[in-house]
Amino acid sequence: MATMNHQVRLASRPDGIPQARHFALVAAPLPEPRDGQFLVRNLYLSVDPAMRGWVGAVANYSKPVAIGEVMRSRAVGEVVASRHPDYRVGEHVVGWLGWQEYAVSDGTGIIRRVTETDLPLSAALGVLGMNGVTAYFGLLDIGQPKPGETVVVSTAAGAVGSAVGQIAKLKGCRTIGVAGGAEKVRLCRDEFGYDAAIDYKGTADLDAALGDACPNGVDVYFDNTSGRISEAVLRRINKRARIVICGTAALASWEPWPQGPRVERHLLVKSARMEGFLVFDYENRTHEAVPLLAQWVRDGKLRYREDILAGLDQAPDAIAGLYRGENLGKRLIKL
Amino acid sequence: MATMNHQVRLASRPDGIPQARHFALVAAPLPEPRDGQFLVRNLYLSVDPAMRGWVGAVANYSKPVAIGEVMRSRAVGEVVASRHPDYRVGEHVVGWLGWQEYAVSDGTGIIRRVTETDLPLSAALGVLGMNGVTAYFGLLDIGQPKPGETVVVSTAAGAVGSAVGQIAKLKGCRTIGVAGGAEKVRLCRDEFGYDAAIDYKGTADLDAALGDACPNGVDVYFDNTSGRISEAVLRRINKRARIVICGTAALASWEPWPQGPRVERHLLVKSARMEGFLVFDYENRTHEAVPLLAQWVRDGKLRYREDILAGLDQAPDAIAGLYRGENLGKRLIKL
Repeated sequence: MATMNHQVRLASRPDGIPQARHFALVAAPLPEPRDGQFLVRNLYLSVDPAMRGWVGAVANYSKPVAIGEVMRSRAVGEVVASRHPDYRVGEHVVGWLGWQEYAVSDGTGIIRRVTETDLPLSAALGVLGMNGVTAYFGLLDIGQPKPGETVVVSTAAGAVGSAVGQIAKLKGCRTIGVAGGAEKVRLCRDEFGYDAAIDYKGTADLDAALGDACPNGVDVYFDNTSGRISEAVLRRINKRARIVICGTAALASWEPWPQGPRVERHLLVKSARMEGFLVFDYENRTHEAVPLLAQWVRDGKLRYREDILAGLDQAPDAIAGLYRGENLGKRLIKL
Repeated sequence: MATMNHQVRLASRPDGIPQARHFALVAAPLPEPRDGQFLVRNLYLSVDPAMRGWVGAVANYSKPVAIGEVMRSRAVGEVVASRHPDYRVGEHVVGWLGWQEYAVSDGTGIIRRVTETDLPLSAALGVLGMNGVTAYFGLLDIGQPKPGETVVVSTAAGAVGSAVGQIAKLKGCRTIGVAGGAEKVRLCRDEFGYDAAIDYKGTADLDAALGDACPNGVDVYFDNTSGRISEAVLRRINKRARIVICGTAALASWEPWPQGPRVERHLLVKSARMEGFLVFDYENRTHEAVPLLAQWVRDGKLRYREDILAGLDQAPDAIAGLYRGENLGKRLIKL
């Protein structure tokens, strides 16, 4: 076994999207599990758009990652040593294990054991992890789609969006994906089964394109972007529409508070609802979603793409890369 | 009985808040009820901020009042002639009877009979009418306040707001009213029992005043204004806050779409909800609310103010007067 534990720590606080320069690669001593603890060797690390918020100083849902702290991240790994009665060597676990090669845990921060051994381990971080669970509860609990309704998804080819579109389709909805670039739009149509897909970057008139794609208006909008896509959708919502606020990828910074068209009157005249969704609120319901998601994957009804980077040294620039739009599918770091 | 029916008709379409010049006073022949119809003599006509939307051409929840049409309005009146089996002469009814002295109906547009004969008839249009029912369902169905929570109300001394504040108090909440001017703030505190009241016109720092009044943050915001009051409240919402969008009095026009700070991130990081409320969606549940509201009025737990103008010729300027803030309490026209 190694004697060192390589880690990516937060080196300085970014204003907006974290770049490679905001992180430092550090070699720390390999930790030893004490009584009631176990040691996990991380195999895949997660890279998520939401990490922008975790390292920011303002307006967030969790304590910011401290300067000098290992970058907060979900990871999937193997228990390689254990002095904990409930965790055995050889088991695979998913949890808040951080951007590092090894993590010691007493069980806190462990989300679940990986039991779907017939599926790739990496899926535990994406379609069967934070992204799939976000799509599942965000769409079904907050969006509450009904058969025949029209569901619009922004970042429709992304790790969350692609699952939202497919689950909405499984629930009998008409699905419209909005994505940036011809390749992502092609993925939306050919791989993720959207009934229509709009390239917001390549479309001269997004408003008209949306109107063509949604002749019966919009009942559910799963919003990962905010910004001009949301403005166009808001003009087309139906009575009692539900807007799931899951991410704000289109906006570079929230300090100062960005301006945009006011939503109140649109919500009022349509008796519509806009609601924020945080997957963290659903962590203890993960077990409800994962078996269903896994079965849909086995049945070929829930497809996913991964964008796997090799080696811990890829991590520092990996978040910025997401915002540059360079990935197709769930971004992971393979160790 | 009279031979003429004086009416206020929409003469031209306003851009924004309707003024006296947008209406015309007309004398029409007294209508005769045919078989299956009855004639109502209106006793009180309602004047509501929402009328702005009913006469506007854009973005609304109902068909705009046509040019030349009698102004849409709730009224309470007495059945004075009937050829309808279910309505008897002498009964009092509330319904969509319009800004006119007499209305013929076949029952369509009648909301209910007035049965609480121990209370003033005018109350059927305010605290036991659209305003009280709006407060009741908007607060309880959409806002879902729990005992101990903090509820903030804008236009807190108004016909809807004052009822919201008192119902929230009855449900065990801490209530904060935001109103314009010293007299309305005094009413909030002394008459409507708010725990704190803020004069948004007289306060140099609304944000700080709100912070002082809400040391534990805001759980429910009943929003009748939009605008800068809402911006200040949004900064202080708690986890899982509920924002009831009931009116947008602070904004003069919705064409072009007004700009303001984006709400998405605030809703996201707090898992909060913003939802439009239209009392029209609850018309068939009026009977659930009215007996409870009436009992609270009898018990002195639900107080209300009225601002009664005398005579139909007061109607054309009455909506503009609401937006000038000249009324204290529910505005009515007594015929």
